[in-house]
Amino acid sequence: MYVVKSSLADADLKVVSEALQGALMDLVDLALTGKQIHWNIVGPRFRSIHLQLDEVVASARTHSDTVAERASALGVPPDGRAATVASGSGIKTAPAGWIKDTDAVSAMVDALGSVITRMRERVTATETPDPVSQDLLIAITADLEKHHWMFQAENA
Amino acid sequence: MYVVKSSLADADLKVVSEALQGALMDLVDLALTGKQIHWNIVGPRFRSIHLQLDEVVASARTHSDTVAERASALGVPPDGRAATVASGSGIKTAPAGWIKDTDAVSAMVDALGSVITRMRERVTATETPDPVSQDLLIAITADLEKHHWMFQAENA
Amino acid sequence: MYVVKSSLADADLKVVSEALQGALMDLVDLALTGKQIHWNIVGPRFRSIHLQLDEVVASARTHSDTVAERASALGVPPDGRAATVASGSGIKTAPAGWIKDTDAVSAMVDALGSVITRMRERVTATETPDPVSQDLLIAITADLEKHHWMFQAENA
Amino acid sequence: MYVVKSSLADADLKVVSEALQGALMDLVDLALTGKQIHWNIVGPRFRSIHLQLDEVVASARTHSDTVAERASALGVPPDGRAATVASGSGIKTAPAGWIKDTDAVSAMVDALGSVITRMRERVTATETPDPVSQDLLIAITADLEKHHWMFQAENA
Amino acid sequence: MYVVKSSLADADLKVVSEALQGALMDLVDLALTGKQIHWNIVGPRFRSIHLQLDEVVASARTHSDTVAERASALGVPPDGRAATVASGSGIKTAPAGWIKDTDAVSAMVDALGSVITRMRERVTATETPDPVSQDLLIAITADLEKHHWMFQAENA
Amino acid sequence: MYVVKSSLADADLKVVSEALQGALMDLVDLALTGKQIHWNIVGPRFRSIHLQLDEVVASARTHSDTVAERASALGVPPDGRAATVASGSGIKTAPAGWIKDTDAVSAMVDALGSVITRMRERVTATETPDPVSQDLLIAITADLEKHHWMFQAENA
Amino acid sequence: MYVVKSSLADADLKVVSEALQGALMDLVDLALTGKQIHWNIVGPRFRSIHLQLDEVVASARTHSDTVAERASALGVPPDGRAATVASGSGIKTAPAGWIKDTDAVSAMVDALGSVITRMRERVTATETPDPVSQDLLIAITADLEKHHWMFQAENA
Amino acid sequence: MYVVKSSLADADLKVVSEALQGALMDLVDLALTGKQIHWNIVGPRFRSIHLQLDEVVASARTHSDTVAERASALGVPPDGRAATVASGSGIKTAPAGWIKDTDAVSAMVDALGSVITRMRERVTATETPDPVSQDLLIAITADLEKHHWMFQAENA
Amino acid sequence: MYVVKSSLADADLKVVSEALQGALMDLVDLALTGKQIHWNIVGPRFRSIHLQLDEVVASARTHSDTVAERASALGVPPDGRAATVASGSGIKTAPAGWIKDTDAVSAMVDALGSVITRMRERVTATETPDPVSQDLLIAITADLEKHHWMFQAENA
Amino acid sequence: MYVVKSSLADADLKVVSEALQGALMDLVDLALTGKQIHWNIVGPRFRSIHLQLDEVVASARTHSDTVAERASALGVPPDGRAATVASGSGIKTAPAGWIKDTDAVSAMVDALGSVITRMRERVTATETPDPVSQDLLIAITADLEKHHWMFQAENA
Amino acid sequence: MYVVKSSLADADLKVVSEALQGALMDLVDLALTGKQIHWNIVGPRFRSIHLQLDEVVASARTHSDTVAERASALGVPPDGRAATVASGSGIKTAPAGWIKDTDAVSAMVDALGSVITRMRERVTATETPDPVSQDLLIAITADLEKHHWMFQAENA
Amino acid sequence: MYVVKSSLADADLKVVSEALQGALMDLVDLALTGKQIHWNIVGPRFRSIHLQLDEVVASARTHSDTVAERASALGVPPDGRAATVASGSGIKTAPAGWIKDTDAVSAMVDALGSVITRMRERVTATETPDPVSQDLLIAITADLEKHHWMFQAENA
Repeated sequence: MYVVKSSLADADLKVVSEALQGALMDLVDLALTGKQIHWNIVGPRFRSIHLQLDEVVASARTHSDTVAERASALGVPPDGRAATVASGSGIKTAPAGWIKDTDAVSAMVDALGSVITRMRERVTATETPDPVSQDLLIAITADLEKHHWMFQAENA
Repeated sequence: MYVVKSSLADADLKVVSEALQGALMDLVDLALTGKQIHWNIVGPRFRSIHLQLDEVVASARTHSDTVAERASALGVPPDGRAATVASGSGIKTAPAGWIKDTDAVSAMVDALGSVITRMRERVTATETPDPVSQDLLIAITADLEKHHWMFQAENA
Repeated sequence: MYVVKSSLADADLKVVSEALQGALMDLVDLALTGKQIHWNIVGPRFRSIHLQLDEVVASARTHSDTVAERASALGVPPDGRAATVASGSGIKTAPAGWIKDTDAVSAMVDALGSVITRMRERVTATETPDPVSQDLLIAITADLEKHHWMFQAENA
Repeated sequence: MYVVKSSLADADLKVVSEALQGALMDLVDLALTGKQIHWNIVGPRFRSIHLQLDEVVASARTHSDTVAERASALGVPPDGRAATVASGSGIKTAPAGWIKDTDAVSAMVDALGSVITRMRERVTATETPDPVSQDLLIAITADLEKHHWMFQAENA
Repeated sequence: MYVVKSSLADADLKVVSEALQGALMDLVDLALTGKQIHWNIVGPRFRSIHLQLDEVVASARTHSDTVAERASALGVPPDGRAATVASGSGIKTAPAGWIKDTDAVSAMVDALGSVITRMRERVTATETPDPVSQDLLIAITADLEKHHWMFQAENA
Repeated sequence: MYVVKSSLADADLKVVSEALQGALMDLVDLALTGKQIHWNIVGPRFRSIHLQLDEVVASARTHSDTVAERASALGVPPDGRAATVASGSGIKTAPAGWIKDTDAVSAMVDALGSVITRMRERVTATETPDPVSQDLLIAITADLEKHHWMFQAENA
Repeated sequence: MYVVKSSLADADLKVVSEALQGALMDLVDLALTGKQIHWNIVGPRFRSIHLQLDEVVASARTHSDTVAERASALGVPPDGRAATVASGSGIKTAPAGWIKDTDAVSAMVDALGSVITRMRERVTATETPDPVSQDLLIAITADLEKHHWMFQAENA
Repeated sequence: MYVVKSSLADADLKVVSEALQGALMDLVDLALTGKQIHWNIVGPRFRSIHLQLDEVVASARTHSDTVAERASALGVPPDGRAATVASGSGIKTAPAGWIKDTDAVSAMVDALGSVITRMRERVTATETPDPVSQDLLIAITADLEKHHWMFQAENA
Repeated sequence: MYVVKSSLADADLKVVSEALQGALMDLVDLALTGKQIHWNIVGPRFRSIHLQLDEVVASARTHSDTVAERASALGVPPDGRAATVASGSGIKTAPAGWIKDTDAVSAMVDALGSVITRMRERVTATETPDPVSQDLLIAITADLEKHHWMFQAENA
Repeated sequence: MYVVKSSLADADLKVVSEALQGALMDLVDLALTGKQIHWNIVGPRFRSIHLQLDEVVASARTHSDTVAERASALGVPPDGRAATVASGSGIKTAPAGWIKDTDAVSAMVDALGSVITRMRERVTATETPDPVSQDLLIAITADLEKHHWMFQAENA
Repeated sequence: MYVVKSSLADADLKVVSEALQGALMDLVDLALTGKQIHWNIVGPRFRSIHLQLDEVVASARTHSDTVAERASALGVPPDGRAATVASGSGIKTAPAGWIKDTDAVSAMVDALGSVITRMRERVTATETPDPVSQDLLIAITADLEKHHWMFQAENA
Repeated sequence: MYVVKSSLADADLKVVSEALQGALMDLVDLALTGKQIHWNIVGPRFRSIHLQLDEVVASARTHSDTVAERASALGVPPDGRAATVASGSGIKTAPAGWIKDTDAVSAMVDALGSVITRMRERVTATETPDPVSQDLLIAITADLEKHHWMFQAENA
C-alpha cells in the first residue's frame, strides 16, 4: 500500500525506526503508569505527588506524539496499541491497588530510570543514521532526566 | 491496608465498581486507538480526520480520568494499566500499519459503537445503586454518541 | 438515503425525537424573540435589559445546538428552518415595533414560562425511553428557569 | 410612542430603512440556513463543511446585529421575528432532512449568491441617502463574497 | 409581597425547598470552615493543604450560589445569613486557634462526610418532586465526594 | 521646521485638516464630558449609566487618537490641548456638580447629537478631497450614532 | 502549641490583633450579607444591583483573606467561623425573605457605613503599633468607601 | 440636592477636597499634554518617546479616575471639564505644532516635575485629615516620580 | 477550468483585478523589503527601528492576504510568486548588506511613499466598478499612510 | 562599514553562511509558494488544504527569521529580497492560476521534498564548523519533514 | 556627570538612599538564596517547598526592581552587582550542597526574619524624610511577613 | 548524604558538571549585570536599551535555571550564591553609578562576548561525555549570540 518516501537509506531507517518504536512503547506506558499511580496513591504526600504525576503524564503524552509522528514522517507506521505497549514496554508493571506515597515515588524513580537508560542507547544509536531523530530523542531524555531527579529528590 | 469509607452499601458498590472499571478500560483503549489511527491514517481526508481523532482522544482521556477518580472516591482502586486495558477493553484491536481514511472512519464508528452499547448497560445498571455515578456515565454517553454520529455522517 | 444507526428502539426514538424537535423550535424562537426585543426595547431600563436579553440569546443558541445535534446523534434529522420555527414554536409572537422596558420584561417572562412548561413535559416523556436525552433537557430546563426567575424578579 | 430623532430626511430614511430591513431578513435567514445544514450534512466532507458552516453562521449573526442596531440608530424599529424572516427572506428554503456534502455546498453557494445580489443593490441604493449605512453594507458584502468564494472553490 | 410563580406543586415545593435550604446552610458553612482551617493550619504539609482547602472553598462557594439561586428560581427565598448558617449547618464547628495539618485533614474528612450524607438524602428526597433540582444536587454530591476522597487519601 | 509630505494637494488638505481638527476637539471634549458625568451622576440608574458612560469615553478616546494621527499622517500637526478643546469644541459644557441620572442621559443625548451633526458635515466635506479620511469619519459617525440611539432609548 | 514569632511587642500586638479580628468578622459578614441580598433582591433594578452586590462580595472576600492572613503572619490565629461572625460582626442582620431593590440599596448603604466607621477607628488605632497592618486597613477602607459612595449615589 | 454623607469632618473635608480637585486638574491635563506630544513629536527618537508618552497617558488617566472617584466617595463633586482643566492645571501649556524629540522630553520633565511638586504638598496636607486619601496620593506620586526619572534619564 | 462567478461585469472586473494584482505585488514586496531591512539594520536606533519594521511587515502580510483573497472572491486568480513580485512590484529594491539606521528609515519612507501613490490611484480607479474592493483599498491606504508618517517623523 | 565580530573562523564562517543564505532563500520561497497555493486552490478539499497551507506558511516565516538572524549574529548580512529569492530558491515555481486540490498537495510534496534534501546537506555541512547553527537547521528539518509527511499522507 | 534632580533635601535623601540601597542588597540576595535552595533541596517535601521557593524568588525580584528604580527616581544610582550583594546583604549565606527540606525551611525562616527586621527599621527611618519611599517599603514588608509566616507554619 | 544516581560515568560527570557550574555562574552574573545597567543607564537611548536589557535578564534567568537543574539532574549540587558568582563569574564587573547609553551597550557587548567564548568551549567539552547537556548549552549559546548581535548592531 501507501509508502512515504523516507529521507533515509534503508539500513539507517531500520536503526532509527527501531529506536522510535521502542521509545513510543516506553512513553505510552510511562503515561499509563503515571495515571495509574495518580489514581491509586495514598498517604500524607497524596496531593503533592498526585499533581506531580500529572506533569509526568503530560510530558509523556507529548513525547509519545513526537516520536510516533517522527516515525510516520520517516515512512514507518508507529504502533502504540494497548497490547503492543503491554508486551513491548521496558517499564516494570505498576502494582495493582492502592499504593503508599513513598512506594509511588520509588516506582516512578524506577520507571523513569529504566526508560532513560534505553533512551540514552537510542541517542547513541541514531547519531549517525539520523541526527534529526537523535535531536528529538536528546530533548526527550533531558526532560525525563529532570523528572527523574525530582522524584529522587522527593524520596531522599 | 488503606480503605476509603464508601458512601455505598457493599452490594451496590460491587455493581457500580464493575461499571466504572469496565468504563475505564474502554475509555483508555479508546484514547489509545484514537491516537493509533491519528498517526497511521492516510488518504485525501488525512488532515480532517487526523484532527477529528485528536478530539476523540481528548474526550476519552478526560472521561477516563473522571471514571477512575470516581472509583477511587467510592473506595475502589481503579486499574488502567496497559495489560489490563489490552485484555479487558471491549474495543476490537485496531489494525497495524497505515490505514486508509475510509477504513479509519469505519474503525472509529465500530469502536465508538461498541463502547456506547456497554455504556448504556452501565447507565441502566447503576441507576438504583448510585445515581451519582450514573449521572457521570450518562454525560459520557452523550458525548460519545455525539462523536459516533460525526464519524457515521463522515462515512455516509 | 443515509441512516444513522440509533441507540434506541423505534418506539422510544419516536417519543424522544418529538421532544427534541419541539425543544429545537422553541429554543430557536426564543433566541429570535430575545434578539427582537434586544433591538426594540426603550425606556429607563434599556441598557440593563438590553444586555440581559443577549444572555438569554446566548443560552438559547447554545441549547438549540445541543438538542439539534442530539437528534442527529440519534439518527433523526432536526429541522430549525425559519418557516418551521414560525409555525411550530410554542412562544407567542413578539409585538412589532418599539417596546417599553416593562413590556419587554413581561414578554420574556411569558416566553420563558411557556417554553419551561413544555420542557418539563419533555423531561417526563423522555425519562424511560432515553435518560441520556432527558439529562440534556433537564440541564436546559434548569438554565431557563434561572432566566425566568431573573425576569420575574425584575418586574416585581 | 417613542421616536428616535433620525439623522436623515424622511425620503432618505425610507430608502435606507428598507435596505436595512431587507438585509436583516436575509442575514437572519442565512444564519438559520447555515445551522440547518450544519446539523444535517452527511458525506466524506462532513467535518470540514460542518465547521465552515459555523463560520458563516457566526458572520451572519454578527452582521444581522449590525444592521438591526443601525436601523434602531436611525429611528426605525427592525423586525427579525421568525415569521417575518420566513416570508421576507430572499434565500430559497433549505431542503428538509439529511443533505449530502456536495448538495450542502451548492445550497450555500446559492444562498450566499442571492443575498450578495441584493446586498449590492442596497449598497447602490444607500450611497446618496446615507453613506454611513452604505459603509456597513459594503463591509458585510465583502465578507459574504469571501464566504461565497470559499464554497464555490470547494465545489470546483 | 412579591411571589415568583413556581413550576412545582405546593407539596413538592415544600420538600424541594427544604432540601435546597439545608444544602445552602451546609455549603456556606463548608466554605467558612475551609477558610478557617486554611488560615490556621500549621505543620509540614502546611502549603499543600492550605492550597487544597482553597479548592474546597471555591467549590463550596460556587455550589452555594447554585442552590440559593435554584431556590429563588422556584419562588422560595434562600437564607444564607451568618446566624442562620451558624445554627442550621450540619457541620461540626471547627476548633479555634492553630490546627496541626493532620488534624486539619481529619476535620475536613469529617466535615465533607457529614455534608455528603445529608446531600445523598436530599438527592433521594427530590427525585420525584423535582428532577431538575435533583440533577443539581447530584452534581454537587459528585464533586464533594471527590474532595472527600482526596482528604481521606491524604490521611491514609 | 519639519514637514511631512502630504498625499493631498494644498486646497484639499485645507478642507480635510479643518475637518480632522474639528473632529479632534469634539472627540476629546466628548471623552472629558463623559468622564465628568461618569463621576457626578446620581439616581436609581447610577450604576447602569455610570458604566455606559465609560463605554462612550473609551470610544471617544480611540476615535480622537485616530483623527489626530490621521492629521499627522497628512502633515498637519493636531491640537488637542485643554484650552484648545475648551474653546473649540462644539459640545455644550456639562453642568458642574452632581447630576441626576435623567439629566445625565439628556446631556449625553445632546452632546452626541451635536457632535454627530458636525461629523456628518465633515463626511460630506471630505468625500472629494480625501476618501481615506472620509472613510475614518464615516466609521466614527456610525459608532457615535449607535451610542446616540442607546441614550435616546434609555430616556424614552 | 505552635507560636509564630511576631514582629511586634506584646502590647502593640494586642491592639493590632483586635483590629484585625474585628475587621475579619465585619468583612466575612459583609460578604454573607451581600450574597443574601444578591439572592433575594426584587424590583426594576434587580439585575443592576444583583451584579453590583457580587462586586462587593468579591471585594469583601479578598479583604477578609488579607486581614486573616495578616493576623496569622503576626502570630495570632484568626477566627472567621460562622458563629463567631454571627455574634461579633458590627453589621445589622439583613432581613429574611425577598427584599425590594430600594431597600436592598439602603441595607448596603447601612452595612458599608457601619463597617467603614469601625475601619477608620482601626486605622487610627494601628498607626503607631504597626504601620504595616495600618497600610492594609487603609487600602481596604478606600475600597469600602468607594462601594459606599456607589450605593449612596444609586439611592439618591 | 443630593449629599453623600462624608466620613470626614467639614474642616478636614475642605483640605482634602482641595487636594483632590487640584490633583484631578493636574492629572487630566497631564494626559492631554502627553497625548498632544505623542501626536506631534518628530525626530530620531520618535517611536521610542511616542510609545513612552502613551504609558504616561495611561497612568494619568487611571490616576485621574482614582482621585475623581475619591472626591465623589467623600461627598464632593469632582470637576474635570475642559475649561476647568485649562484654567486650573499647574502644567505649562505644551507648544502648538511639531515638537522635536529633545524638546518633547524636556517638556515632559517639566510637566511631571511641576505636578510632583504639588502632589508632595498634597501628601503633606492630607496626612492628618484623611490618611486614606493621602495613601492614594502617595501611590500616585511614586508612579509619577518613576516616569519623571525615565524622562530625565532619557535627556541626560 | 474552474471559474468563480464574479459579481462584476467584465469591463469592471478588468479594472478591479488589475488594481488588486498591482496591490498584491506591492504589498508582498513591502513585507519582503521590511524583513530585509529588519535583518540588516545597524546603528544606534537598531532596536527601535528593528521592532517598527516588524509592525510594517505584519501589516503588509495581512493586507496582501486581503487583496489576494479579494481577487479570488471576484474570480480572478492572484499571483504572489517571487518572480512575479520581483518584476512587478513598484518598490525600489532595497540595498544588499548592512544598512545604517538613518538609511533604513529613508528607504522605508521611499518604499511606503511609492506604494501609497499607486494605492491612491487604485482607490480612484475602483470607485465606480466596485465600491467593495475600493473600501478595502481605502482601509489599506489609511494604514500605510500611518506607517509612512511614523518613518517620516523618525527621520525629521 | 560595520562588522559584527563572528564567533567563527573565516573558513568555517564561509561554509555556515552559505548554508544559512541557502536556507533563507528556500524558506522565504516556501512561504510565498504556500500562500500562492493557499489563494488559488480549488476542489473538494479546498478548506482543509487552504488551512493546512497557512500552517506551512507560518512555519516557513518563523524559520526564515531564525536563519536570517542567525546569519546576522555571525556577522554575515542575509539577503531575502524578492529577486534574490526568485533566482536563488531551490523550489520549482508554482503554476499560475487556479490549482486543483490534488495538484496543490503534489506541489507541496515536491516543494517540501526539495527543500528537505538541501536542508539535510546543510545539516551535514555545518556540523563541524558550527554546531550551534547546525542545531537550528536540524530543528527546522524536523519540522519540514513533519509537514512533508502530512502532505504525502493526504495524497495517498 | 548626570544628576537626576531629587524631590528630597540632601539630608533626607541620605537617609532614604541608605534605606533603599540596603533593601536592594537584601532583596537581591533573598532571590539568589531562594534559587540556591530551590535547586538543592531534597526530602519528602521537595516538590512543595521547591515551588514555594519560586514564589519567594518572584516576590524578591519584583521588590528589588521596585527599590532600585525608586533610588534612581530619587537621583541615587543603585548598586545590585554580585560582589556588592555578597558583601552587603544581611542574609546569612546559604550552605553549599544538598539541603534537607526541614533545613531548607529553617534557612528561609531565618533569611526572611533577618530581612524583615531591617525592613522595619527602614520603614521607621524613612517615615519623615520620604513617605513615598516608606509606602513602598511598607508594602514589601507586608509581603515578606506573609512569606515568613508560611515558612514558619510549614516547620511547626 | 543524599546522592542522585547519575546517568554518567565519573570522569564524564566531572567534565560536564564543571561546564554546568561555570555556565551557572556566568548566567547568574549576566542577569545581575543586566539589571545593574537597566537601573543605571542614562542618555537618549535610555528607554530602548532599558527595555532591551530586561530581555537579556529574562533570558539569563531562564538559562541559569536550566543549567542549575541540569546539574541537579546529574546528581551534582549547583552553586549560584552571591559570593560564588562574584568570584567565579567570567564577566568583568560593571562600573558603579550612572552609565551612558553608549557605554551601557559596549558593556553588554563585552559581557555577552566573554560568556559566549566560554560557552563555546563548554559545548566542545561536553559533546562526548553528555550530548544531552551539550544540547542545552548549544541552545543557550544560540540565544546569547542573538543578543550579542543586537547590542553590536546597536553600537555600530
